[in-house]
Amino acid sequence: MTLPTPQHTATILVSCPDRRGLVASLAQLLYGHGINILDAEQHADSSANQFFQRIRMDLREMHVDRGTLERAISEVAQRFEMRWRLAYGSPKKRMAIMVSKYDHCLHDLVLRQRAGELDCEIPIVVSNHPDLGPTVHSYGIPFHCLPLRADDKQAQEQMLFELFERERIDVVVLARYMQIVTPELCARYAERAINIHHSFLPAFVGGKPYHQAYTRGVKIVGATAHYVTVDLDEGPILEQDVMRVSHRDSVDDLIRKGRDLERMVLSRAVRAHLEDRVLVSNNKTVVFG
Amino acid sequence: MTLPTPQHTATILVSCPDRRGLVASLAQLLYGHGINILDAEQHADSSANQFFQRIRMDLREMHVDRGTLERAISEVAQRFEMRWRLAYGSPKKRMAIMVSKYDHCLHDLVLRQRAGELDCEIPIVVSNHPDLGPTVHSYGIPFHCLPLRADDKQAQEQMLFELFERERIDVVVLARYMQIVTPELCARYAERAINIHHSFLPAFVGGKPYHQAYTRGVKIVGATAHYVTVDLDEGPILEQDVMRVSHRDSVDDLIRKGRDLERMVLSRAVRAHLEDRVLVSNNKTVVFG
Amino acid sequence: MTLPTPQHTATILVSCPDRRGLVASLAQLLYGHGINILDAEQHADSSANQFFQRIRMDLREMHVDRGTLERAISEVAQRFEMRWRLAYGSPKKRMAIMVSKYDHCLHDLVLRQRAGELDCEIPIVVSNHPDLGPTVHSYGIPFHCLPLRADDKQAQEQMLFELFERERIDVVVLARYMQIVTPELCARYAERAINIHHSFLPAFVGGKPYHQAYTRGVKIVGATAHYVTVDLDEGPILEQDVMRVSHRDSVDDLIRKGRDLERMVLSRAVRAHLEDRVLVSNNKTVVFG
Amino acid sequence: MTLPTPQHTATILVSCPDRRGLVASLAQLLYGHGINILDAEQHADSSANQFFQRIRMDLREMHVDRGTLERAISEVAQRFEMRWRLAYGSPKKRMAIMVSKYDHCLHDLVLRQRAGELDCEIPIVVSNHPDLGPTVHSYGIPFHCLPLRADDKQAQEQMLFELFERERIDVVVLARYMQIVTPELCARYAERAINIHHSFLPAFVGGKPYHQAYTRGVKIVGATAHYVTVDLDEGPILEQDVMRVSHRDSVDDLIRKGRDLERMVLSRAVRAHLEDRVLVSNNKTVVFG
Repeated sequence: MTLPTPQHTATILVSCPDRRGLVASLAQLLYGHGINILDAEQHADSSANQFFQRIRMDLREMHVDRGTLERAISEVAQRFEMRWRLAYGSPKKRMAIMVSKYDHCLHDLVLRQRAGELDCEIPIVVSNHPDLGPTVHSYGIPFHCLPLRADDKQAQEQMLFELFERERIDVVVLARYMQIVTPELCARYAERAINIHHSFLPAFVGGKPYHQAYTRGVKIVGATAHYVTVDLDEGPILEQDVMRVSHRDSVDDLIRKGRDLERMVLSRAVRAHLEDRVLVSNNKTVVFG
Repeated sequence: MTLPTPQHTATILVSCPDRRGLVASLAQLLYGHGINILDAEQHADSSANQFFQRIRMDLREMHVDRGTLERAISEVAQRFEMRWRLAYGSPKKRMAIMVSKYDHCLHDLVLRQRAGELDCEIPIVVSNHPDLGPTVHSYGIPFHCLPLRADDKQAQEQMLFELFERERIDVVVLARYMQIVTPELCARYAERAINIHHSFLPAFVGGKPYHQAYTRGVKIVGATAHYVTVDLDEGPILEQDVMRVSHRDSVDDLIRKGRDLERMVLSRAVRAHLEDRVLVSNNKTVVFG
Repeated sequence: MTLPTPQHTATILVSCPDRRGLVASLAQLLYGHGINILDAEQHADSSANQFFQRIRMDLREMHVDRGTLERAISEVAQRFEMRWRLAYGSPKKRMAIMVSKYDHCLHDLVLRQRAGELDCEIPIVVSNHPDLGPTVHSYGIPFHCLPLRADDKQAQEQMLFELFERERIDVVVLARYMQIVTPELCARYAERAINIHHSFLPAFVGGKPYHQAYTRGVKIVGATAHYVTVDLDEGPILEQDVMRVSHRDSVDDLIRKGRDLERMVLSRAVRAHLEDRVLVSNNKTVVFG
Repeated sequence: MTLPTPQHTATILVSCPDRRGLVASLAQLLYGHGINILDAEQHADSSANQFFQRIRMDLREMHVDRGTLERAISEVAQRFEMRWRLAYGSPKKRMAIMVSKYDHCLHDLVLRQRAGELDCEIPIVVSNHPDLGPTVHSYGIPFHCLPLRADDKQAQEQMLFELFERERIDVVVLARYMQIVTPELCARYAERAINIHHSFLPAFVGGKPYHQAYTRGVKIVGATAHYVTVDLDEGPILEQDVMRVSHRDSVDDLIRKGRDLERMVLSRAVRAHLEDRVLVSNNKTVVFG
């Protein structure tokens, strides 16, 4: 079989109480509409009695239109009390990157997108500082500096939302953005805004985690990418990784080694999100392979 | 849903050319016989156009007997040119361990089996040396010493086969067994005999891999568990892992660190095999999660 | 050069404020007494202005007695405000293992000691439960069951201290010992009692860390070996390691994977301690290579 | 103590047959010239009877000139048959990067140098293809395209050497340079030219290692940075690292994951070299911490 191009693929993510006949019903429905299953992965969480499934589909021989397919899925979904989300392979998701002064994650995300590793558009980069403007411009990406005014946080946020609206932003990535985001943003971009925290959460929540790690004398440091929620550093974890350190490493060494971790962890999390491989349940993620 | 006990579960492993309708047909068949799918994982290798699937099933409400189920599967299998294997959750697989003089993998396998990590019986341990007899006996496991006679290898092998036959051995694990096994054994226990090689294959094939690694000055050493085939060290790889080393490590240090690797890698491979999570295709393995 | 046997080696561990001439003075002193340096490692913590050094020595051509050597070191130590500890290569350290009901770390430590990986005697195993008695006896090691009486904790502890005294215990290893040790024990065996905590500290302090990790949805679990201090889970960290997990892993899977981590981490920490490679400063460890 | 700036530091690397009094003699010499030891690390390879040492020195209170110091070292060196190399902390080393068409290691090295992770100048990038010219120019670095002419390899090489001479190049990094370098270059830049090979050497030597790894079905892929020698892929290994893969990964996935490995491994090797932490002996490296 030749592989379909992105325009002819779609991905469905499903979660529901685990019940008999689920898999067969959905497989049968798709087959009956001329859809071929490219990849299916499922997970049953027996402790919570929840079922999760991701199906990537080839739509080339689908003999109904999208609306008909979606109605058919709706019916099955109702029967099984499914939450579901259908994402078509095109157009690409539009991703906004938010930064402050650190540039390593910014470079990394842009270079990976250019290398074809991250399948998205990056129409804007937003910052609360002007410093990274030239860097962003050197990539030919529009840079928006929205400084925070202590007396009027809402004004900045309002501009942010208008900007995101205008640019039809699907995903927001906080690439070492050093401001606390508002509950409003968390709500609007729930499960669509990704943050990188520079520690192995839940160790070292809050500020200056590398300093905390140094003081505690840990032998391993980490980084954590998570969906943004109102409770800081408490959102569903998408990806984590760690690196060995020793008594030889100063705080500066931890920061340097940590940059590599942050880059790797954030880019893997973003990639999983962009490929519709993530389901959230009970403040935890199911990240399919 | 309460979870079924092993007596009421079965696992089917399937491989076939990738074709439309596969997933739906099998799901439908199982559902139609009152079987609930506990876990399903599939993999499509688009470069080889091969499809692989593992389904773990709950048989408690199956309303036919095993024979009827198997005939039904056979029919679908024929239609899709499937190779398939159905393994019932009980009785447990019977595993023979073969050793020579090193005991670390032996201890590890037995202790894991006792801790419930490896779901199998260990009715016998076989060796070409008498040394580990007391160790094996201390675990209450029958020990068979079958020394190799240079002039008559076949005699030993014949005794081995009779022993395996009598003990109804399903799986053979070469836990640092230091003899080359015969083509006859490879054939009889194809995809059921597992060896641990103490290097990151294909680096350092053959003898004394830690010495080879030391001489080459590598910064990482590894271990590899693979199914036994006639071509030494060339069998399908089940599992590998590595450990960082440095100029400080002598050959003895590599050997010591390697023991940990060998234990971990071999036990993970054995566990995957015992849980019917492995499919072989084109001298490579698909190891489901 | 042929290598000296343990009877002819000694290790000195030194910590002091970092000052000019330190290295030269100590090297000169040893050389002047006919001592050859086998290995020297040093570390300067510039943020705390502390200097740490470990020197492993060959005493075969030392032309003074031990007392004279120690007096000479004392003099240099006074000049540089050094804390120092001299450990001779023999006799071996005597290690007590304390357990409750879990046996995996116990098996691991004993088997490693027998394989020559841990250079120590294990004259006793102590438990607050009788369960592991037969296991310990099967290794030919005396087992002491000292049940805790809620109304009289001191009685048990007094027996423990007498036992340790009688057996001339140098090191105490809490191999998943499930009781909180008293401040008295912490004080008597300061920097000589090692505990294994089954999480990546400081994440998941306290009880049931695998359950905590499962609930938080982390993608990595860890284990931490630390010196025992009065503040539970706050002692100087000797060693940590981690393992990747996923949404597929149940709490039982985390516990199973964790056992491998606990074994590895605890045994590495014990090994470092037995080889006199650890210095504590400011509640952190310097673990030389 | 305040830390010296690079202008006031120097690093000496020493290797010689292991003999009594070595450490004391060198420490005494430095102390006697007013030099403070900032860091010293040593390694004794007992199997080869070789001794290796790295000493980083603070020269602020040195009360002789560089020439006098070097003569004094020479004398001690002669006595102990030492090979030694003294590198002053300034000026910075000058590094040439050679590329072909892949840009990921190029971006990585330049961005790390700018972030202060790699303490060097990058005065030129050389390629046999024009493709990466614009990328290099965007960083403000001169780009030299020296195409290979099949009929006259020497002409290109001659230009290369002149260029390196003119630019006073200290280190050459082959950042996925896809041409075989000549014995002449290997000789001129012995232990100063670093290559990244995209496999865990010695597995998968030669071309298309990711394809080889895919075909063999390994569960782990790696990358190796080594000094360039005439025997391709046989040079002393500076650094290696690996990443877990599975049956799910296509060749393209291996290539993508491998890019991360190549970046990490090459940059760590380059950093170790730039910081004068590497000694070569017997085609192996001692890389100090």
